[in-house]
Amino acid sequence: MKNLPLSGARLWDSLMDIARIGGTAKGGCNRQTLTDLDGEGRALFQRWCEAAGLTLSLDRVGNMVFHRPGRDPSRKPIAIGSHLDTQPTGGKFDGILGVLAGLELMRALHESGTETEAPLVLINWTNEEGARFSPPMMGSGAAMGLFTESEVLAKQHADGAVFGTELRRIGWQGTADPADLQNLGAYFELHIEQGPQLENENLELGVVTHALAQSWYEVTIEGVDSHGGGPMAGRRDAMMGAALLISAVEEIALSAIAPSGETGRGTVGCLTVHPSSRNVAPGRVWFTIDTRHGDPERLAWMGQEIKARAATIAAQRTLTITVADFWHAPMTQFAPDLAEHLRQAARSRGYSFKDMPTAIGHDAVYVARKLPAVMLFCPCHGGISHNEAESITAEWATAGMTVLADAVLAVANAPR
Amino acid sequence: MKNLPLSGARLWDSLMDIARIGGTAKGGCNRQTLTDLDGEGRALFQRWCEAAGLTLSLDRVGNMVFHRPGRDPSRKPIAIGSHLDTQPTGGKFDGILGVLAGLELMRALHESGTETEAPLVLINWTNEEGARFSPPMMGSGAAMGLFTESEVLAKQHADGAVFGTELRRIGWQGTADPADLQNLGAYFELHIEQGPQLENENLELGVVTHALAQSWYEVTIEGVDSHGGGPMAGRRDAMMGAALLISAVEEIALSAIAPSGETGRGTVGCLTVHPSSRNVAPGRVWFTIDTRHGDPERLAWMGQEIKARAATIAAQRTLTITVADFWHAPMTQFAPDLAEHLRQAARSRGYSFKDMPTAIGHDAVYVARKLPAVMLFCPCHGGISHNEAESITAEWATAGMTVLADAVLAVANAPR
Repeated sequence: MKNLPLSGARLWDSLMDIARIGGTAKGGCNRQTLTDLDGEGRALFQRWCEAAGLTLSLDRVGNMVFHRPGRDPSRKPIAIGSHLDTQPTGGKFDGILGVLAGLELMRALHESGTETEAPLVLINWTNEEGARFSPPMMGSGAAMGLFTESEVLAKQHADGAVFGTELRRIGWQGTADPADLQNLGAYFELHIEQGPQLENENLELGVVTHALAQSWYEVTIEGVDSHGGGPMAGRRDAMMGAALLISAVEEIALSAIAPSGETGRGTVGCLTVHPSSRNVAPGRVWFTIDTRHGDPERLAWMGQEIKARAATIAAQRTLTITVADFWHAPMTQFAPDLAEHLRQAARSRGYSFKDMPTAIGHDAVYVARKLPAVMLFCPCHGGISHNEAESITAEWATAGMTVLADAVLAVANAPR
Repeated sequence: MKNLPLSGARLWDSLMDIARIGGTAKGGCNRQTLTDLDGEGRALFQRWCEAAGLTLSLDRVGNMVFHRPGRDPSRKPIAIGSHLDTQPTGGKFDGILGVLAGLELMRALHESGTETEAPLVLINWTNEEGARFSPPMMGSGAAMGLFTESEVLAKQHADGAVFGTELRRIGWQGTADPADLQNLGAYFELHIEQGPQLENENLELGVVTHALAQSWYEVTIEGVDSHGGGPMAGRRDAMMGAALLISAVEEIALSAIAPSGETGRGTVGCLTVHPSSRNVAPGRVWFTIDTRHGDPERLAWMGQEIKARAATIAAQRTLTITVADFWHAPMTQFAPDLAEHLRQAARSRGYSFKDMPTAIGHDAVYVARKLPAVMLFCPCHGGISHNEAESITAEWATAGMTVLADAVLAVANAPR
């Protein structure tokens, strides 16, 4: 719909306007979920949506769901969503871009009096960030039946605040059933990449085809503390065992190659040493492993291989090594036909793009467990997010918003 | 002097008696330097020494030096020494064995009215442990001119206590010049091994021929924080660089082989990670390296090789790696003729022994910088020390004390 009055400038202005609510001295945003500032942000968003002719339905976990009727009320609504909450030292775009890009489409449709076949829905999910109340993505998780409502409402912050109490305090608990959202026809989410790939490859968009499967582990290596002056023979040095296993994590990730050429990812992010003295070969080292792969079988192989390597190192060095399963997230496939609509829209608008997975959790990943969903990434500078320095260009925002709008309309107006 | 009334039982009883001063519930000892308990321990030791006919000369840094005249006052005194101070959760033998084994010799000589040609000296060095006031071995270091007296007296504990003030407070600052001890003719020190070699090899004694040279380093690896979900290609993961360099430390130590067959020792005892998040490939890793070798040239080679390996890893992985020199201690040779006296005594008494280096600092290592000195090790269970569980057998103590006494008398009575 190239004649739709979509405005990149208006989108940018709205991004800057809402960023003032919780705006930080360093140019970021602190608008954590269910704070007074979150309430202010929600109120502004409601005013904007209502001015664009949308009708709010607020659910019992605070998800804001705005409706726009379609010509054919028997068709399932096509949804756009993301989140307005931020990290404590968050940026102006993570989540917010996806919500306000959807708003811009609604404004353009409203202004031009354009109807769609299917109804449209615009969603602001509650607590995507998980910064005040853990885990993240609670609103979409509750809607998709992954968390119970009572579980979500009872979540407590370390400072004593309770999710349900805070939700009522700021006045944003509604009466709609969050599970109603399982009846959407399709779900689209535009989000900043939160990684450097698109910028590095000079691409304007990423069509997100799947969310990587993840398996996280905790490794404990136990040996015997020994004086740094003692002979090497007979040492049971946990650090030297750890070094070998950490190198193996990288080697195993790189050798887990899918037919697509995609390799696994292996990360050792935390490590602690005991007793932690310069002249003591450590008797105990603990570290974390984060493994990810787009192919669940290869991810499972990575875990087996890491455990096998640990057993070999333990036997060779008279160490005790435990590799404990810590957390697992399954591979989530986004809807191929929705991804193809995004590609077609990008091609038609002349934007450069590539297919890519998301390695990070998003509301769309939970939504995709229940209904057709897809994501679109736009670049962000230096891959920096969850940081006040998070930044994108207005051109990137416009490209993402335009392709999102085109694809949503293509699906909403597709013949049945 | 096989007819000397040396008593292993009396030595053991004295070890147990003094261990009550600062004795801990777990069977260890907390008699840190310049505390009230150190003062009590010193007073008991003084009573014992004076009962054995010795005369105290107390120096300005608190070293207790007991004198026993020789038949020939023109000969330089032959000294035995070690320390009575302990770690906060120390044992009953580290240091104390060496002092009280010397006392047992003095008692036996006194009881039997035995004279020696050269005068004898028995020393309790101040603050060997370095637990309250760092660095360790301050009393012997000051006596040998490695630290100035004013520097030692001004040392401050984190809790505000000052060495000189504490020394006066407990009443143990004397007037003698610590540098007088540079005029000793020879110095012997019996000490527990603080390592497992003698026990593992079922040996009763270790004749300590030298102190290993040591070079300590601090390594900082800087890359770029990257999300654990991002691709492996292009990562600048400081942890993966660290793992390779840590493995190289071991490999380099094992390949630094002296003609004697002795290898180097390489230890990575401390390591920190930033930002330390499970799903972030770390942008910064810092760790320590402790390298030791009996051959200073091979130790220097180890340092060069570690730095060369760091440069290679940095280039291959686009990391910045700095390997900073942190501390160096030269190789210290003990006096070969004194070591031979210890071997002869052990052979003559029928004790099993081997030559070995010390990899740990001792007062004897500082003394050896100025005059002929040697050490004798006795085994300790499991190599455990600086621990309340530190333990030895009375037989091991007796063997060490007997060989020490024989060698000291051999030197003190040797024809000029």
